[in-house]
Order: sequence, then C-alpha cells, then structure tokens
Amino acid sequence: MAPEHSKVDVLIVGAGPAGLMAATWMAQCGINTRIIDKRGTKIFSGQADGLQCRTLEIFDSFGFADRVWKESNHMLEICLWNPDEDGRIRRSDRIPDTIPGISRFQQVVLHQGRIERFFLDFLKENSDIRVERGVLPETFKFDEFLAEDHEAYPIEVTLQHLSEEELNPDQSQMTKGAAKSDGLFRSNMAADDTDELLDRASKNGRAGTRETLKAKYMIGCDGAHSWTRRQLGYQLEGEQTDFIWWDIRIISGDSANLSKFRGVLDIIPITDFPDIRMRCAIHSANSGSVMVIPRENKLVRLYIQMTTTEKGGGKPLKVDRSNITPQMILECAQKTIAPYKLTYNYCDWWTAYQIGQRICPSFSANERIFLAGDAVHTHSPKAGQGMNVSMQDTYNLGWKIASVLKGTAHRSILKTYQSERHRIAQDLIDFDHKFSRLFSGRPAKDVMDEAGISMSEFKSAFEKGNLFASGVAVDYGASILVAKEGNPQDGANGTNIGISASSVHGKPEVAKNIKMGMRFPSFQVLNQADARPWQFQERLKSDGRWRLILFAGNISNPPQMTRITNLCANLSPIIKRYTPAAQPIDSRIEILTLHSAPRASTELFSFPELLRPLSDEGWDYWKIFVDDESYHEGHGRAYEGYGADAERGCLVVVRPDGYVGWEGEIEDIEDIGRYFEGFMVVQR
Amino acid sequence: MAPEHSKVDVLIVGAGPAGLMAATWMAQCGINTRIIDKRGTKIFSGQADGLQCRTLEIFDSFGFADRVWKESNHMLEICLWNPDEDGRIRRSDRIPDTIPGISRFQQVVLHQGRIERFFLDFLKENSDIRVERGVLPETFKFDEFLAEDHEAYPIEVTLQHLSEEELNPDQSQMTKGAAKSDGLFRSNMAADDTDELLDRASKNGRAGTRETLKAKYMIGCDGAHSWTRRQLGYQLEGEQTDFIWWDIRIISGDSANLSKFRGVLDIIPITDFPDIRMRCAIHSANSGSVMVIPRENKLVRLYIQMTTTEKGGGKPLKVDRSNITPQMILECAQKTIAPYKLTYNYCDWWTAYQIGQRICPSFSANERIFLAGDAVHTHSPKAGQGMNVSMQDTYNLGWKIASVLKGTAHRSILKTYQSERHRIAQDLIDFDHKFSRLFSGRPAKDVMDEAGISMSEFKSAFEKGNLFASGVAVDYGASILVAKEGNPQDGANGTNIGISASSVHGKPEVAKNIKMGMRFPSFQVLNQADARPWQFQERLKSDGRWRLILFAGNISNPPQMTRITNLCANLSPIIKRYTPAAQPIDSRIEILTLHSAPRASTELFSFPELLRPLSDEGWDYWKIFVDDESYHEGHGRAYEGYGADAERGCLVVVRPDGYVGWEGEIEDIEDIGRYFEGFMVVQR
Repeated sequence: MAPEHSKVDVLIVGAGPAGLMAATWMAQCGINTRIIDKRGTKIFSGQADGLQCRTLEIFDSFGFADRVWKESNHMLEICLWNPDEDGRIRRSDRIPDTIPGISRFQQVVLHQGRIERFFLDFLKENSDIRVERGVLPETFKFDEFLAEDHEAYPIEVTLQHLSEEELNPDQSQMTKGAAKSDGLFRSNMAADDTDELLDRASKNGRAGTRETLKAKYMIGCDGAHSWTRRQLGYQLEGEQTDFIWWDIRIISGDSANLSKFRGVLDIIPITDFPDIRMRCAIHSANSGSVMVIPRENKLVRLYIQMTTTEKGGGKPLKVDRSNITPQMILECAQKTIAPYKLTYNYCDWWTAYQIGQRICPSFSANERIFLAGDAVHTHSPKAGQGMNVSMQDTYNLGWKIASVLKGTAHRSILKTYQSERHRIAQDLIDFDHKFSRLFSGRPAKDVMDEAGISMSEFKSAFEKGNLFASGVAVDYGASILVAKEGNPQDGANGTNIGISASSVHGKPEVAKNIKMGMRFPSFQVLNQADARPWQFQERLKSDGRWRLILFAGNISNPPQMTRITNLCANLSPIIKRYTPAAQPIDSRIEILTLHSAPRASTELFSFPELLRPLSDEGWDYWKIFVDDESYHEGHGRAYEGYGADAERGCLVVVRPDGYVGWEGEIEDIEDIGRYFEGFMVVQR
Repeated sequence: MAPEHSKVDVLIVGAGPAGLMAATWMAQCGINTRIIDKRGTKIFSGQADGLQCRTLEIFDSFGFADRVWKESNHMLEICLWNPDEDGRIRRSDRIPDTIPGISRFQQVVLHQGRIERFFLDFLKENSDIRVERGVLPETFKFDEFLAEDHEAYPIEVTLQHLSEEELNPDQSQMTKGAAKSDGLFRSNMAADDTDELLDRASKNGRAGTRETLKAKYMIGCDGAHSWTRRQLGYQLEGEQTDFIWWDIRIISGDSANLSKFRGVLDIIPITDFPDIRMRCAIHSANSGSVMVIPRENKLVRLYIQMTTTEKGGGKPLKVDRSNITPQMILECAQKTIAPYKLTYNYCDWWTAYQIGQRICPSFSANERIFLAGDAVHTHSPKAGQGMNVSMQDTYNLGWKIASVLKGTAHRSILKTYQSERHRIAQDLIDFDHKFSRLFSGRPAKDVMDEAGISMSEFKSAFEKGNLFASGVAVDYGASILVAKEGNPQDGANGTNIGISASSVHGKPEVAKNIKMGMRFPSFQVLNQADARPWQFQERLKSDGRWRLILFAGNISNPPQMTRITNLCANLSPIIKRYTPAAQPIDSRIEILTLHSAPRASTELFSFPELLRPLSDEGWDYWKIFVDDESYHEGHGRAYEGYGADAERGCLVVVRPDGYVGWEGEIEDIEDIGRYFEGFMVVQR
C-alpha cells in the first residue's frame, strides 16, 4: 500500500500532560494540529504528582481548575518528624504547605489520569483535536534551510498506525493487573519502546497503515526516552545511575557501607501514626526516612528511603530485582515509623525508583522542532514538580507557536522558549538535588555531627522549597517579550533573544507587586456592571489574546478621567494596527480596566467606548472592574495588593500566558507602541 | 399484545426538576425506582428561574452545586428605578439581592434545561435510574385498604410507551423553531395533553406497547395540569383567570379602564440603560413596569407589565392572540424604560403569561400517592420561586419514602410531608400575591395618592421578600421529626403528625443560631486530621443518613473530655439499636464532631473511637473538626456563628435533608433515645 500523504501545522508527539497542554493551546487558538501517542491506553496506574498553585491557575485560565480542586486531596500542612534525644520520632514542626497569600489556590494531589481526562474533555468540547493513540513515528526528516520560510513545511515524519491489539501489551497487562502489580516511575525508568513496538508489529505482519506527514512545527513531548530528541541527536546531560533501587554510598566520616532502598507505596494505610493525612517528612534516627503524601480516595503515597548499615563491612548486599515485593518496602517504612504501627489491606501501586537529574542543553532545533517536559529534563519524583514543570513548558510554548502561525507575531518570539524554560529546568534540578540530599541523609545527632543532616537546615530548605514548589516564583528574564532591564544574557543560555540597548524598558515602580517576567497576580475585583466579585486572574483566560490592564485610578476625579480619555484616543490606533480590520477590536489585544472610584457613584457609560466596545450583542459589560467592597466576599483591596497608585493608576501589558511583559505610566503610550512593535505583525 | 406486568417500589410521574429531585434521592438511597415523562424532549426553550441560596445548598449536598455556580449568572444587587418629580425614571435604591451572611451561596439564574442536565448526569453516574421518555400513564387503580401494609403494592398504573416519532410534535416544533418562536409559561398555561397524545397515537395505529405497573409508592410531579392529581380527584383552589395576556381592571379611584399586558422577553439587549446587568424593578410614571433579570450567556429576561389607559372609556380592547408579536412586547418595554433606548438583534424566547395563584388542599392520598411541585401549587413566574419550591417539595419527601422502604423509619413520618410543605406552598402564594400587586401597580405620585403603589412600601417588600426568596427562612413546625415546642396543629393543615404532650422537646437555648425546624446553617471548620477548611454543610451530604453533630467544646479541659467519653459510651447502644448488625456503625446515623480546643495541641487519637470508627480502610479521618484558624481562609468562628458554648458544647440531631430535628445538652442522651424511638425502626 502506498503511503498516505498529509500536512499539518503542528504535530505533537506524546499525549501526556505536556503534550496535552500544547494541544490545549492549539485548540484555544484554532490551530490545525495533530497529537499522536504510541500507547493504546491513556492512563498509567499510580502516576500522581502534586499540582502547584501556578498549575491550578493555568488550569483555571482554561476553565477546568474547579474539577481538579473538587477531586483532589488538598495539602494544607507539612509536619516534620524527627528523632528526639531518646531516638524516638516526634513531631518537631508544623509549617503551611502553601505559603499563605501567594496564590488563590493551594497545592493539591491528584492522579495523573484524571488530569489527562480534564485535558481530553477540554479538547473534545472546544476543538476537533483528538489524541491518535497507537500511532508511532518511524522516520524523520527536517529541512533546516526552510526553517525561516513562514509558509514551508520543513518537517517530514512517517507514522505507523498500529491496530488496537498490537498496542503495548506489556503496559496493558500491567494496568489490568491493577492493585498490587509492579510499576516503573514514568520519567526515569521506562526505556523507550518505540522501536520494539514497531519491530513486533512488523514481525507478526500486522504493521498497520503508514502515513507520511509534513508539518510546519513539531513538539516532542515523548518523555525521558524521547524519540523526537533521538532524531535530533540531542543528549540529556547529568547524573544517571544504572542501579535501580539500591546503591552504596560512603558518607564521609562514616566508615560503614550503607544500603539505600528507594521505594514508593500507594496504599490505604491502617496506622496509628497521627499525621497520616498530612504531608510529612519523617526522619528516623537510624532507619531511613519516609515522606507521606496524602492523596485522594483515602490513598496515601509513601516515599520510602531505607538506610541500613550492612554488617560485614564493605560488601554490598545485592538484591535480585524480581525478588522485590511491596512487603519489603512496607517493612522499611514500618522501621522508620516505629513505634507507630503501619499496615494496609489495599495497595494501589508500588515501585522502586532512582534519582537521576539530567537536562538537555538545547530545547529546540531552528525553532521548528521543540522538546518539552521529561524529554528535556528528568529528576526524582519526590519534589512533586515533574508534571508541573513539564506542563508549564508547553504552556510557555504553545501560544507562541500559535501566534506565529496565525500571523500575529514574528518568529523571533520562539527563541524565548529556550531562554525562558531552560533556566527553569536547571532550577528544578538544582532544587531536586539539594532536596534529595537532605531527605536521604541521616539526621544529625547534634551540632557536632557533621555527617548527619541538620534538621533545622532541612526545615529551612522545606520552607524555601515551598515557594519554589508553588510555581509562582518563576521569573522570566529580559527579552523582546519581557521589557525589563538586566543583562539579556542572564538565563538566556546563549540564545539570542533579540533585545538590545535600544529596547524599551517598563517602569517597575508603577506597581510594586506587579513584576515584569512574573505572572500577573490575582486580587478580588468587582464587575462595575453587575457588582459580581471575581478574582482578577479569572478574567485573563488563556485564549491567545494579549491584555492591557488599565489601572484607571480614581476616575471620579475629572483630571484623571481626562488622562484616561486621552489614553484611549492614543491607544486606539495602536490596537487597530495589530488587529485585522474584519475582527472585533478586542480580538488580539483586550483592554481590562480596574478603577478605584466608588462603584455606586460610577456609571459604566461614563467610560470611553474603547473600554466597553459595542458589538452586535450590545455593549461589553465584562471589561470594567472596580476595587470596592463586595456584598458577600469582603473588599479585595486590589490596588493595595498590586501596589498601584489608587489615584493615578498605571498600565500593564500581560502576555497570553499571564506573564507581565511591560508596565508603565498612563502617558507611556509611545513605549507601549515600541514594545508591541518589537514582535507583533502589523495587520493594517 | 398482552400487557406486560411489572413491579416497582417508587413510580415518579414527570421528569421536570421536582421529579428529578425525587429520583435523585432514590438513587442516593438505592431504591428501586422508575421515572416516566410523557414528553420525548427534555428541555423547554426559555424556561429559567432564579435559584435560591437554599436550592444551591441542596444541590451541593448532592455534589453538583459547583456546576450551577460556574454556569449561572450571579445576581448581586437589585436596583430600583422610579419616576422622579418630572416623571423621568431614576435609580432610587440599590439593595443586595441576597441578604449578606444568610448562606454561603447567593441567588443565581440558569436555564432549567441545564439544571435538568445536572440531575440526569447525577442519576447516570450514581444509579441505574433513567428517565423513560414518551411513556404515558393511561389508567390508575389504588387499593387504599392495602395502604398500611408495608409489603403491598397498592397502586396499579397502565403505561403506554410511545414511539419516538409520535412524541409531542408540537413541542418539538416549538423547540426547533428556536430563537423567536412563541412559548407558554410552564406552570400556568400548558393544558395537560396526556389524553390528546394517547388519542393521536391510537388513531394513527402507532399506540406503542402497554405495560401494567404495580407500585408501592407514587409521586406525581406532572405539572399544573397533573394527570396524577386528576386520578385522585383533587382540585387546585384559588384564582384562575382565563384571559391569557390582557385583562381589564378598574383600579379604585381611577375611572379609566386599564389594559394590562404581561409579557416576557429573553433577549440579548442593546441598550444604554446602565443597570441592564443588575436585577431591576423599573416603575415608570404612566407606562407600566419592567423587571430585569440578567441571565447567563449575555441574555436578559424582561418581565413586562404594560398599563395603558384606553381611550373610549369602558370598552376593553380585545387583542387576537395570533397577532401578538415580540415587537409588541418590546414596544411596551421601550415605553417603560424611556428615555433610555432598548432593542435587540437576538431573541431567545418570548411569551405572555397570566397570574393565577392556586393550591391543592391535600398533597397525598393515604401517604402512598404524593403530589409535588406545580401539581399542587401554581403562581406567577416573577417571584422566581416556582422551580425552587417544587424541587424542595420532593427534597422534603424523597428521603422519607426511602427511609420507610428501607425499613429505617416508620410510615408515620410520611404525614410530615403534608404538614411541612403545604404551609410553604401557602406562604409562597401569599408572597406572590403581594409581590405581584406591588409590581403591577402604578407608582404613587405622592403620599396622598392612595391608588398608586408607595415606592417605599415596594422597597420594603422587596427587602423582606429577599429573605423569603432565599429559601433559608423555611421553618418546619413541631412534629415527630421536629422536637420543638408549639402547637402541633400550627401549620399542620389538619394532619395528625403524631406528637403529643409527652413528646420529647429539644432545648433551643443550647445553640441560639441552630433552630429546630430550620436547616442546619454553615460555618467554616477545619478537619482535625488534615487541617483542610470546609463549610460544615459540605460534610452533611444528602445520602439518607441522620447526623448527630457533637459540639464537643473545649476538649483540652479534662472534665469536658470526660463528658464526651461518657456520652460516647451511652450513645453507642442507641446508634447500634437502629443500625443493622452487618452494616458499618455510621451507616444510619453518622456522628460529626466539632471541638473548640486548639487544633495543633489536639491529637486525633485522643477522641473516643466511636467518633473516628475503624474499618477495613483504617480509622476514619473525616469526622472530627475543629473551630480554629485556617492557613488560607481565615477563622470560621463556628462556635460563635452557631451560638454554641465553646466550653460545654452541645448535641444536635440533623435530619437527612439537613433540617434540625433536636438539640440539647451533652447529657440529654435519654431525650435523644426518645426522639429516635418516635419514628425509627429497631434493627437489633
């Protein structure tokens, strides 16, 4: 049979969370897209991660954070358990799991299968994009001379469509084996089985149909053993041990060999340990550590690190992998948690894992083929960050590709994917490295015990880690998209991100809590037209539009209203320049207004029409907000929260992904013009 | 073809909101149930109602309030517009639409079709109950001598199953006609077409199959022209005019005839009226009234009441019904709203309606056949209460029937349906009557203008109406289920509700804001085991269980902990008495504890095991709560909110529907025993 030929704007390889996030952007922006996955089943038993506050904010910008919030287990408090003077574990500290005030969400835990379900439901409701399962990429060609040709399809991939039965029987068996079967941790352990699958299908004569697909852009979200990365010849760099579930380490100053087990148990625990529904870090005096992650449906995940001093000196005890049982892992946990008792009737999943922090130096080839998620960074599961950082990779990338394809933005913005996300991946690995070391070690007996881990250092790391782990601390460097001062090479990882000495710089002083490069924070505001309270972030949907947030200040003061009127007169031509004539005025850049005059003495129709544009459906009642007392939810004190001047206001540009691109005074209209000029395509 | 014979425990006739609510209870309690509806289509264009706070609380107890909250339009403020001295309309007042503090929800508006969708999704996810559409009841027999025989099926109904094509072509056409077709208001206008449908099906030889169904219980939720009510020979009593959309009234003191139009328009308005996204009551000086109800999807519902003084004296102007157009209704609205402009490009639905408040004196036959919703009470749409009261009828009834069928409670509790709901229906009609009069009238020119409606009286009525319209003011009278003092005949409408001078009486003074007969209010509490904040009501799911709320007080004080320990020892045999031996201890009566000691200095395992029972899945971590500061949501101050003594605590019994049955001191264990003895069936 002759191969079928087809074309697509964006090909996404891999339908895990990173791939689905990319597809979600394409759905929102109406981009011609295909997403393939070699596996026939979509849910992997046992895979679960904590979800950062920032991830929930992102989900909310697509409209499904509420489903996660409802089904997930909420983690509120971390309890630290350490040995007391008699070596018995005691609760030494309680700290909030999410730092109060940093987000309107808190960290939660939910099975990855549910997260994927929410993405799939979104795609079904909002687009024609469907995950094609059992589709394997076989050959790859890339014509880099066509990379800068906007109309070209420089990528060619042959795909093999397997029949349902041929798909991944091993994985299926594992999934069906259900409760107590073994499993492998996603990022680090599973070898890439693309070749094996293709080979097996070919040998039994059921290879399925072949298709030759040409694509403008391609995103490889195909995991730690990424087929896409292999085609580009890129390598992950960093530590990679071959030992799966034990290794031998000589801790300096300690002459004994230590055997370390690292295991995971997902169980419904039966225990008299009082904090089993809290996130806990338990360090026993001499019997290893346990991290407790309470999950949904009464489940608890235990990360177990067993450190035993081997008798007989330097000879490591080798354990045959096939002999490992959940009972062995449980016994390790029981030793750590003693004198409390721990057992279970139901085990959902268990595994052993290794720590291997690795990163890929380059995240793209010619800004046509991109790699994201585990394909470019791997680390230990314990930090609970993997799925978040992976999804945020493609959340950063998706709108940029869509903007270029739609002719809204120049291709130059695509370089910011590498400059923005490579440093985040490096930060994650550094965090994971430090955190793993602290968790793995034996607690120090006293301040003189230098071989042990100081529990106060551990607590401090945990607290600092919380900010990192929230995801809201992400701060992208200066670029054509982030008009802040600073060395353009900082964190750019050698990428030319198109800025120069003549680049426009915003004024961070106009709103001290709105920071260029960071996500636009959220405070409660009221809709002027119907008095409904909203978290301001809820109005910044991820729909591909840029947003101008006009802090209009106290518009009951006539000179201030004059400033606003003048601004609108000057802003109108800039917005029109980047908006196709046939499109609504708010289709590329939407203006949202927040004023500080009393709501009840302000009339909607006193604002310039640009701020509440007219359409076939009447005036727009959903763009003007006020910082005032609500009837049922208190006062948002948004001006105070944002650190903006409640009289004079200011102006903020928010990127389609919610990160702040520019901020300045209401008169800085020329700067706004230059900012957009840096990367936006003129439409008329 | 010989008729098919079958049996069912509960037959529900009518799958509107009242019928679906009944089915939802049956699903939750695992009752063998069928629900039939004569219509083949499920959604009626245009039907929408406000949803009371209480209705949202009830939806939340089944787990789908969040879907309503997300999709609906939230109404926050009511603006009153009245003529000024020059006769021009002005905004005279702003009042909150929902009284702050009475509920964790506020009133919202959503299309009835979506509400039905959420019920249907619930049934699908939680039971085998499916709505059987196109099934018409044909004949009815009831053997009342079997009414008190627990095992009997005293009801026999023949059902005719119509084919898909035969179903209700008129309604289908109307629905397909979409945007601007005419429609009839649900409650009052549609004649019962059961006979017509049967007749038509019979004449064309496509009558479908017949089935003879025997039922233990039957609930007629089949609307204002209820077939079920007709079988019982019951009549609605009250005002019923035959004029559909105009009538003539001589207002005392005014010699001219007034023609009144009452119309509804669902449009996306194009208007410079500034409060179109607020709920508004607009009284013009001489050109009628408009009520504005902002809806979801940019829609606005306008209730239009046009009062024109006819020229030519006493001769009423007759208007042919077929001549009515939405344009005519719009023009009426335009006159009221002038000088503001109003038009539209999109009309979703429009109709004319009459006001006719009627009630059925009896809500059941022998407590085997029950009537609910519009089948027993009709009124005007403007109060926005109809759907709420109808759903709350079956919310009151469903668990009672289920409890009797499951052998948990005696049949005597079924009499409380009539005693509790008849008065609510009467209250609604009185409210509607008063409200319609105030809305219909012309505004008074000054205090001497007795024929006009005083605008201050109107505002005051609106404010009082708000409490009524929230649904949380419902206060059921004394009965075997509500252990409060008072004349048992009050509001019982002649029903023998089984209480006497020797009946147990709770002590309202133990918690001044928890009132027997009213719904258990909600404040934020924290789970002791994981520090998560909950609205306490969220833990009172509608699953058929009774709940003992133990306000345990300050259990860090040893004598108080002794009181709790003693209580548990005495409570255990009472709970066991009403719980089958094979069932978990919390399967019929669940104990939820709220203490007031500091969370961090309290250990879960210091509580008696009865309060955190052990099962195959370990100890229960979801039953003990604390009134303390949360990390992210502030302090719930629940003891203060409930008005309970934070040292001594108290004990409250909450019915399966969330209404308070009894309250007393922690030592009043004997009273609790007597309370349950009044209606619970001993299991062992």
